[in-house]
Amino acid sequence: MSESNGSDRKFKWVGTRPIRHDGVDKVTGRANYGADFDLPGMLHACMLRSPHAHARILRIDTSKALALEGVKAVITSDDIPELALTDASGPTNFSDLSRNVLARDKVLYHGHAVAAVAATSTRIAQEALALIEVEYEPLPHVLDLRAAMAPDAPILHDHMRTKGVDPTPDKASNIAAKMELSRGDVDQARAYADIIIEREFETATVHQGDIEPHACVAQTNEDGQTTVWASSQGHFMIRAYSARLLQLDISQIKVIPMEIGGGFGGKTTVYLEPIAIVLSRKTGRPVKAVMTRDEVFRATGPAPATLINVKFGANRDGKVVAAKCKLVYEAGAFPGSPVTAGAMCILAPFDLDHFLIEGYDVVVNKPKTAAYRAPGAPPAAFAAETVIDEIAHELEIDPLDLRRNNAVSKGSQAAYGPKFSDIGLLETLDALRAHPHYSAPLGENQGRGFAVGFWFNAGMQSSAEVKLNEDGTAIVIEGCPDIGGSRASMAIMAAEELGIDVYKVRPVVADTETVGINDTTGGSRVTFATGMAVIEASQEVVKQCCQRAASVWDIDPTDVIWQDGCAVATGDGAKKLEKEDKLVPMPIAEIAAGAARTGGPITGKASLNARGAGPAFAVHLVDVEVDRDTGKVEIVRYTTIQDAGRAIHPAYVEGQMQGGAAQGIGWALNEEYVYDADGVLANPGFLDYRMPVALDLPMIDTVIVEVPNPRHPYGVRGVGEVPIVPPIPAIANAIHDAIGIRMRKLPMSPPNVLAELVRASGGA
Amino acid sequence: MSESNGSDRKFKWVGTRPIRHDGVDKVTGRANYGADFDLPGMLHACMLRSPHAHARILRIDTSKALALEGVKAVITSDDIPELALTDASGPTNFSDLSRNVLARDKVLYHGHAVAAVAATSTRIAQEALALIEVEYEPLPHVLDLRAAMAPDAPILHDHMRTKGVDPTPDKASNIAAKMELSRGDVDQARAYADIIIEREFETATVHQGDIEPHACVAQTNEDGQTTVWASSQGHFMIRAYSARLLQLDISQIKVIPMEIGGGFGGKTTVYLEPIAIVLSRKTGRPVKAVMTRDEVFRATGPAPATLINVKFGANRDGKVVAAKCKLVYEAGAFPGSPVTAGAMCILAPFDLDHFLIEGYDVVVNKPKTAAYRAPGAPPAAFAAETVIDEIAHELEIDPLDLRRNNAVSKGSQAAYGPKFSDIGLLETLDALRAHPHYSAPLGENQGRGFAVGFWFNAGMQSSAEVKLNEDGTAIVIEGCPDIGGSRASMAIMAAEELGIDVYKVRPVVADTETVGINDTTGGSRVTFATGMAVIEASQEVVKQCCQRAASVWDIDPTDVIWQDGCAVATGDGAKKLEKEDKLVPMPIAEIAAGAARTGGPITGKASLNARGAGPAFAVHLVDVEVDRDTGKVEIVRYTTIQDAGRAIHPAYVEGQMQGGAAQGIGWALNEEYVYDADGVLANPGFLDYRMPVALDLPMIDTVIVEVPNPRHPYGVRGVGEVPIVPPIPAIANAIHDAIGIRMRKLPMSPPNVLAELVRASGGA
Repeated sequence: MSESNGSDRKFKWVGTRPIRHDGVDKVTGRANYGADFDLPGMLHACMLRSPHAHARILRIDTSKALALEGVKAVITSDDIPELALTDASGPTNFSDLSRNVLARDKVLYHGHAVAAVAATSTRIAQEALALIEVEYEPLPHVLDLRAAMAPDAPILHDHMRTKGVDPTPDKASNIAAKMELSRGDVDQARAYADIIIEREFETATVHQGDIEPHACVAQTNEDGQTTVWASSQGHFMIRAYSARLLQLDISQIKVIPMEIGGGFGGKTTVYLEPIAIVLSRKTGRPVKAVMTRDEVFRATGPAPATLINVKFGANRDGKVVAAKCKLVYEAGAFPGSPVTAGAMCILAPFDLDHFLIEGYDVVVNKPKTAAYRAPGAPPAAFAAETVIDEIAHELEIDPLDLRRNNAVSKGSQAAYGPKFSDIGLLETLDALRAHPHYSAPLGENQGRGFAVGFWFNAGMQSSAEVKLNEDGTAIVIEGCPDIGGSRASMAIMAAEELGIDVYKVRPVVADTETVGINDTTGGSRVTFATGMAVIEASQEVVKQCCQRAASVWDIDPTDVIWQDGCAVATGDGAKKLEKEDKLVPMPIAEIAAGAARTGGPITGKASLNARGAGPAFAVHLVDVEVDRDTGKVEIVRYTTIQDAGRAIHPAYVEGQMQGGAAQGIGWALNEEYVYDADGVLANPGFLDYRMPVALDLPMIDTVIVEVPNPRHPYGVRGVGEVPIVPPIPAIANAIHDAIGIRMRKLPMSPPNVLAELVRASGGA
Repeated sequence: MSESNGSDRKFKWVGTRPIRHDGVDKVTGRANYGADFDLPGMLHACMLRSPHAHARILRIDTSKALALEGVKAVITSDDIPELALTDASGPTNFSDLSRNVLARDKVLYHGHAVAAVAATSTRIAQEALALIEVEYEPLPHVLDLRAAMAPDAPILHDHMRTKGVDPTPDKASNIAAKMELSRGDVDQARAYADIIIEREFETATVHQGDIEPHACVAQTNEDGQTTVWASSQGHFMIRAYSARLLQLDISQIKVIPMEIGGGFGGKTTVYLEPIAIVLSRKTGRPVKAVMTRDEVFRATGPAPATLINVKFGANRDGKVVAAKCKLVYEAGAFPGSPVTAGAMCILAPFDLDHFLIEGYDVVVNKPKTAAYRAPGAPPAAFAAETVIDEIAHELEIDPLDLRRNNAVSKGSQAAYGPKFSDIGLLETLDALRAHPHYSAPLGENQGRGFAVGFWFNAGMQSSAEVKLNEDGTAIVIEGCPDIGGSRASMAIMAAEELGIDVYKVRPVVADTETVGINDTTGGSRVTFATGMAVIEASQEVVKQCCQRAASVWDIDPTDVIWQDGCAVATGDGAKKLEKEDKLVPMPIAEIAAGAARTGGPITGKASLNARGAGPAFAVHLVDVEVDRDTGKVEIVRYTTIQDAGRAIHPAYVEGQMQGGAAQGIGWALNEEYVYDADGVLANPGFLDYRMPVALDLPMIDTVIVEVPNPRHPYGVRGVGEVPIVPPIPAIANAIHDAIGIRMRKLPMSPPNVLAELVRASGGA
């Protein structure tokens, strides 16, 4: 443990569990979510969506809809700028995004937005949708990854050539991109393997299942200045994307963040906002757009179905000597699956000299995928973590010993490139072995499994401000929507630095005009990166407080230190004050009250692009009971163990661990998009798309391990993503332990498990 | 002219007249003022006000009011903390403020708030007011300054002893304080005077006449966190005062500034906000409080009536050798008239070696006075500027020559203490002589007069932020309500520093949580002090842009300068880039787009307590026509000439000059509080309280003189206050020129002028 990560520091607030600052408003219903906002004279927008999975748009006639009383505007892609196919910034292609927001020329999935209506009521808007005439030329569609990659597949984008292949192919393909990661020589290394296991895995399209549907209100005034109220994971993203899509100045758009009722990666892009802005500009009135649950399923970011092939070679001692992985991920209708992240994660827990990972990004006639908690990692872990479990069984080595034997630790080179600094994989594995659950007895038809999960975590841009009030209380401004408790965490970190009570700190999530740029809340980056900014801004306030005290005392500022919320004189300064009989600490409230006289208001700010996010490891242990008659898998007991680096507010860390596990359990056992033969989504609702509810789950036990991240002042590493990574393989391993069957296809739902049981017993 | 004030600088945006950024919203009705805000479930508050000018409160029974259906709360001073009589900060006594917000023990003026009701509608709240039983013991009242100072006067505050008198008197008095300013030896100097003129002046109580009545909404949630939406001159003031009065943490209160429909000093304190907060805390619901016009007149900050005695001694050459002034100002019901400011201003334009100024702050049974544009200065100028005009006439010296002869200039010691730096009095007087109006012919019964006005202007605390957007546009955050065009002025200054188009800058007035502390908008301080903060914050952005460019170019940051919105390499850096064939300027948009890669978001901030406000001088020239039959004075022609230091947005400067002149004309000719014998205000409405409307005024001509303030980067000096100072004496001098009568009592209304005409003609 190094000193820089605060591991030797005695904390007063970090690690405590104060009542969240936004808690009262949320439990009493005062907090305003996306759809909770109305304006006088507001219009309501509804979207016309494609009934086809793939079709050419030959003609759209909006005249009858426009003629309906109460309809104020109808727009199609003709009403938004057509962007160059190459208009991109980083991984975001704005031409694709524009065509996803409103289809141009073609519809590419069932539910693809084709037109939008603004009317005086939702009922009238919906009535108008039925009056819009769209002439389609249906085209053959493709939903299946293997079929999409076949040479004769229906092509979604005639201009698309596979990226990452040299030379660039001259033929259009549904393979948007190919990527590769490798080290050593896999084929040579295979010679040292005593055992080689190769398996193929298949996972289904699933949805983030955020409880709050996407919603926004846009208001544009006569000189084009626009305000958007929206629920999202990144209001700066909404501002930047909307400006880019509509070719406006960023300074013309202000986005006010509403509370968010779940995002999980699904609210990291725009769907409704640019449409609401255009409708507001056209009508001169505020426009509200709220999705139905059906629309959320049909048209917003699912996580991709995948096909993954994993081949591990190990020697008799249980050391993996080589690994080969092929990951094929759905992108949905436009390029951009999380296959790269999946490829980066799949072998990250393993200390390997020889490996080859190939990734394929493939478009299909489904909605464009969006990020979903540790994007791409859960299917990858499903594959790697069940194969490693199988190797342990084949070699008759304790799976935990085998994992320790292959585990990365400080100094190991990660499969995705960098050398690991302090990481907590070994520590979480040791905590697993020590946990009573690990050795508890099992009942009939019960089995136990565990799996490791990895997520690299992100840093990115954060801006924060700390302002000292006249009475010594303080305000902390952040610009990241509070998804996982960042208000409480930021208040804790500011209280720690300032040395004041955490309830004297008011944390605020500010709009796009009143705080510097913040990247989207995601990648488990906020407590880490925004926390760094808050600490830095608080330290600027402390520094100024010391200077103000020094000026009042007329001593050198370097003779002033900060202790428990007070400026304290030291050295020569202390001697001088002692002589004057004035050697007493100066509390922050006194410094604040006198600030006008000593130079003006005391504020601190920091804007940074945070480096040094600490990778996160988690291990989950699960007991299942399998009903051999129905194939139903029951979760009997569940324990999550995770390295948090430093848990700022442990209750939130535990909440993330439990929430991620719950989502992973749903993904493992029941969730899947079901399409009919025409490519129409058959289960766009919570009754048919089966997410786990409280009754489906036991209490999920949590153990926080703390191996401080040396590159954060307090040792923080992200905690939000990694808990969704281990559940699928942990459950698959537990099912194997219970009934001796290896599940390699998701979901491990009753029909799928039953089919495997029947097959194993030699049935049909 | 020094270089530091930008006098040699070529400006691109400073001095231009861009369309104001908030203009469209204001002319189309989208801008939200104090009363334009509602919340679901909101209650409406009304105040019970004293029918007596002075009375003891014996008993308040609210039970019948509380029993009325729809009434949710009734409060009296028992529901707010009783503060120590000594609870003060700077000039603000919070015990007095608390007792002004809700009377405790005694009512001190007709209209004094006694209780407040929150009900489901305003009608029910008003009905409930009638059900509150208050038992009063009426006390003798005093409205007149002379009577209030008399030994046997009814005493408003039994605990009050005159401050500034040594030893402190042991007897209660209505004289709250005495102050003095002096230099040299007045009595000795009198020997050198060839002429001595002593005159007594009397001015009436007047009101700021802001068109928008005071209004706010307060919402408190279950953990005490409070949001207030209010129209004011200082939302940080509302936050600080409300917290102090209610003994809450400042961090518990957030104040969101609404647009302000006129303040003029009258919105620099709290009346309704603490009451709305308490009612919201009591009921758990949002509470709205809006004054009627009647309440605004009866209970909010008028400007004081005054009694001023001025004695000037001059020699035959027209040089004033000694001056003695006595200023007696009404404070209203609680101490705190602007007599000190009046005393500081009265002799400021004169270069004097010998003077004595005495000021008295006197309480009377009228509403507590508040600031009103150049608080205290107009009555003082009325006195001094008509006496100096009289001296010129007596000595038969051209009044303009006499003014020049006695005028302060750079290096003169101001009567209130400091040495003047660059000031523009002589320049405005020269501009007056050169103006065609000065020598235009006059008609029958017409007269011409001019007068000089002075205001020292303020600096105080300002915080500002500048944030660079990803596309090179920018946002400027200020925390001062935009009364005189500060959004446009701040955008101009930021555009000037950043080198971008002024319309690419979005100026924002932020709430108390999202910008550092800002003192109240007043004292003509915002363009000066907040402007300094904006310039400083912009320069931080520019510095960072240069550093980012240097890092991309891999050259030394000291080799990068900023030109026309681009980083430009110089010196060795330029040589290196030239060799690499890369020597091109890097535009701000490119730097902004790459900021994430070069270190994160680019933001600048500044918090300061601005020193070096440049004093302002103005001279007004007016032609009047007097109707000898009715005494009505008509303004025939009006020209204002004023030193703005540097006019950032000249149209706003002209607006201030015209607006101040219009208010001064109203004060001079018609405005006055009329009380009946019981101390009841008889004219609390715009029909009876006669302010000038457009039909009463000619087009007011403006001449901006620019003598840059050396202590501001652009040379700015405040412009908002001083225009109200010269109108009263200029008109009085013009009336004398027209009909030979010296008016020494305000208003110079038809009855008062007629009375003087009758008296002069020897009539009754």
